[in-house]
Amino acid sequence: MLELTKDFLDQLQSNIEAGRDVEIAATVGGLHPKDVADIFDALKREEILYVYRLLESELKSEVIAELEEDVREELLSSLSSKEIAEDVIEGLDSDDAADALADLPEAKLEEAMRMVDDQETASEVRELLSYEDGTAGALMAVELIKVEEDWTVARAIREIRAQASDVENIYTIYVVDDLGTLNGRLSLKSLLLNASSARSLLKDLKDDDELVSIEAHESEEVVVKLMERYDLVALPVVDAQGKLLGRITIDDAVDVIIEDAERDYQLASGISEDVEGKDSVWALTRARLPWLLIGLGGGIGGAYVIGAFDIENNPELALFIPLIAAMGGNVGVQSSAIVVQGLASANVNMGNLATRLLKELSVGLVNGLICSAIIFLASVLLGFGWMLSSTVSASLLCVIVFAALFGAFVPLMLDKRNIDPALATGPFITTANDIMGLIIYFSMGSLIASLMA
Amino acid sequence: MLELTKDFLDQLQSNIEAGRDVEIAATVGGLHPKDVADIFDALKREEILYVYRLLESELKSEVIAELEEDVREELLSSLSSKEIAEDVIEGLDSDDAADALADLPEAKLEEAMRMVDDQETASEVRELLSYEDGTAGALMAVELIKVEEDWTVARAIREIRAQASDVENIYTIYVVDDLGTLNGRLSLKSLLLNASSARSLLKDLKDDDELVSIEAHESEEVVVKLMERYDLVALPVVDAQGKLLGRITIDDAVDVIIEDAERDYQLASGISEDVEGKDSVWALTRARLPWLLIGLGGGIGGAYVIGAFDIENNPELALFIPLIAAMGGNVGVQSSAIVVQGLASANVNMGNLATRLLKELSVGLVNGLICSAIIFLASVLLGFGWMLSSTVSASLLCVIVFAALFGAFVPLMLDKRNIDPALATGPFITTANDIMGLIIYFSMGSLIASLMA
Repeated sequence: MLELTKDFLDQLQSNIEAGRDVEIAATVGGLHPKDVADIFDALKREEILYVYRLLESELKSEVIAELEEDVREELLSSLSSKEIAEDVIEGLDSDDAADALADLPEAKLEEAMRMVDDQETASEVRELLSYEDGTAGALMAVELIKVEEDWTVARAIREIRAQASDVENIYTIYVVDDLGTLNGRLSLKSLLLNASSARSLLKDLKDDDELVSIEAHESEEVVVKLMERYDLVALPVVDAQGKLLGRITIDDAVDVIIEDAERDYQLASGISEDVEGKDSVWALTRARLPWLLIGLGGGIGGAYVIGAFDIENNPELALFIPLIAAMGGNVGVQSSAIVVQGLASANVNMGNLATRLLKELSVGLVNGLICSAIIFLASVLLGFGWMLSSTVSASLLCVIVFAALFGAFVPLMLDKRNIDPALATGPFITTANDIMGLIIYFSMGSLIASLMA
Repeated sequence: MLELTKDFLDQLQSNIEAGRDVEIAATVGGLHPKDVADIFDALKREEILYVYRLLESELKSEVIAELEEDVREELLSSLSSKEIAEDVIEGLDSDDAADALADLPEAKLEEAMRMVDDQETASEVRELLSYEDGTAGALMAVELIKVEEDWTVARAIREIRAQASDVENIYTIYVVDDLGTLNGRLSLKSLLLNASSARSLLKDLKDDDELVSIEAHESEEVVVKLMERYDLVALPVVDAQGKLLGRITIDDAVDVIIEDAERDYQLASGISEDVEGKDSVWALTRARLPWLLIGLGGGIGGAYVIGAFDIENNPELALFIPLIAAMGGNVGVQSSAIVVQGLASANVNMGNLATRLLKELSVGLVNGLICSAIIFLASVLLGFGWMLSSTVSASLLCVIVFAALFGAFVPLMLDKRNIDPALATGPFITTANDIMGLIIYFSMGSLIASLMA
């Protein structure tokens, strides 16, 4: 892996400035496309364009496939329609081309499409662009190896040789009937092992056990679940009639897995847009502000709850406000996280709502009893007095049980209504539990005070 | 994908009770091993064993590879050494076998090893078991296709046919020299395309560009980064001398990616052990209690901070305690999450500590200024008075800036000391920021009160 040091970049930038093209081509030209993409990530716009135009045609395409979305969009906007036709539409696999072109202005896209020599390629890419983002169709590539079940082994090997130049990794050979309907698969291995029986028909060799495929309109979450569950490196995509349209390869599924995981993590941490540490201060601020505003609203709500109570005559209750708020928040985040993860990986039935909530109730009760016992003892021993200690201890138990139930209930409800349950995690649950915790705490305080009076 | 309904399970369980073996074998025998594993997950111990013994030998092995760790451990403890020798050691790929055997008692493992017919297989598995958990060596399988660079295409095809029966998915053929040192690879595709030139030497066909490999002692995090970065479906593993030992396939890397993501998510949510919704109440409680105890400690600390201040004479300050605590916590979680994600995916240099903190300072300042302006206006408009409004507003700014810096600093520091930065997220940062927020808030309160006095 290339270590992208400051020295390396400085040297490269001074070479660009001095126009030492041969040297630049020699340094960058021999690198892995992903490494070149990382270098571009660190260069300025005009420097990227300068280096890009020094690359060999094949590397150009490969680098475009690897670039971060924002860098790629910038680069593409600087390229001519001719360059886009050659380096992107013709140079890339159909799925990578469609990805790269997704944000290109319509007019420029049309012009580039017209400049493509092989109009079949252009229309394939155009078709991929028509699938909605986040579906299996948008993830698939049309490049694959397809054979008909009535062919002999000898003919199949000839046809595969002809098709293979378009397909970088073969993985699986798909077997279709004369209507193009997917009905089996063949591994290169079995073809190699049977190459001697050249006259056998593919229908006798093909494997149609456990043939997993997906319809193009299904979501990428289903793609990922199927590929993970059945350890697939390629998943064939079909239309409603079962006709083979394309295939999704594992590298694209891995990208989806990683993006989803990052997104859930960010939502749970109160970050509402996809940002990285290297993004601008403004982008980072914008991604973080929405949740802070919710927190502000919650804080003002909390002030009203406390204000509604006679705090002036019971100022010692203030001491444990942070404890009650923090514990409600922590417990709520814990139980919502378990539910969100369970929903995300749900190969198994999560059980019905009542069962789940009953379990949360049990966990909440056990944790609540342990914590309230500890806080009661600690508080008495530290000299906070019987009344305050019992108020804190009793309300902590209620807060923990409530927060556990609420934290589990909200994502389960959202999921039932087909809203992404991860939206409910982090700050939202925390804020709601903060306020509810304060209401419980001060009601308990009033109750115990009136009982003692 | 099998829908595991209650009806299906009820039917199966009554079949087991009535001993309707033929029916059980017919229902379960035709399923995908992963589906059978899910069924086992829902059955009782003796039921699992009953169904298992009705399966065909190949399916037995495949199901063992797919089982959840706890179910598998239970099943293996009920099997005889002979069954373990046949179904696990001989029946599985070496990496899956080593995984399954990892927790077996030493004596039983030894006995099973002795019962294996092919002692070479036994010693391969034994060797895999010797690699430390979490290393490339522990993830790899020894089954692969290996050819020597001095062979001709014709000989290679013969040898590959012989080797192929052991290898489920070939992906890549590895080329070695006469010492076994990895020095190139060959795709099945290029072999197929060159099958006609039977006398060519492999050294002229092999591809040694960008050959990525990993040493056995490297960590699985490096495995995942390499495979993701270079879109690999198989990664060859070598020893310190470059000798080819095995290969890691993408399905195993995907498992590591998903496990890591779940772990980070759980740590950020305050869950300290790997649990799932279906685990026992006690397991769920135990996983959640440690962080709640930290929260309790923080809450008691908070009580001391508030107690140290003259709250009786300024009870209105209590109103905004929840706001200050919540905002400190939220901001800290946000900035630590961005740092943790950046460190996890760091293909690019994160920049030095000072640069990172300077950026967090800027983001914190912008967010802090916006939030403190809003809270000042809201608080004045809602009639909370000038003094309280300025105290809340000024301290909120300080709290946000401090929390942003602290949230970024802690994981960066941990990472420098080679401690997993994800440990610092969630409750730990929240609790520390709660207390610090209170100290800032009440100090500011005292300061403003004394200025106004």
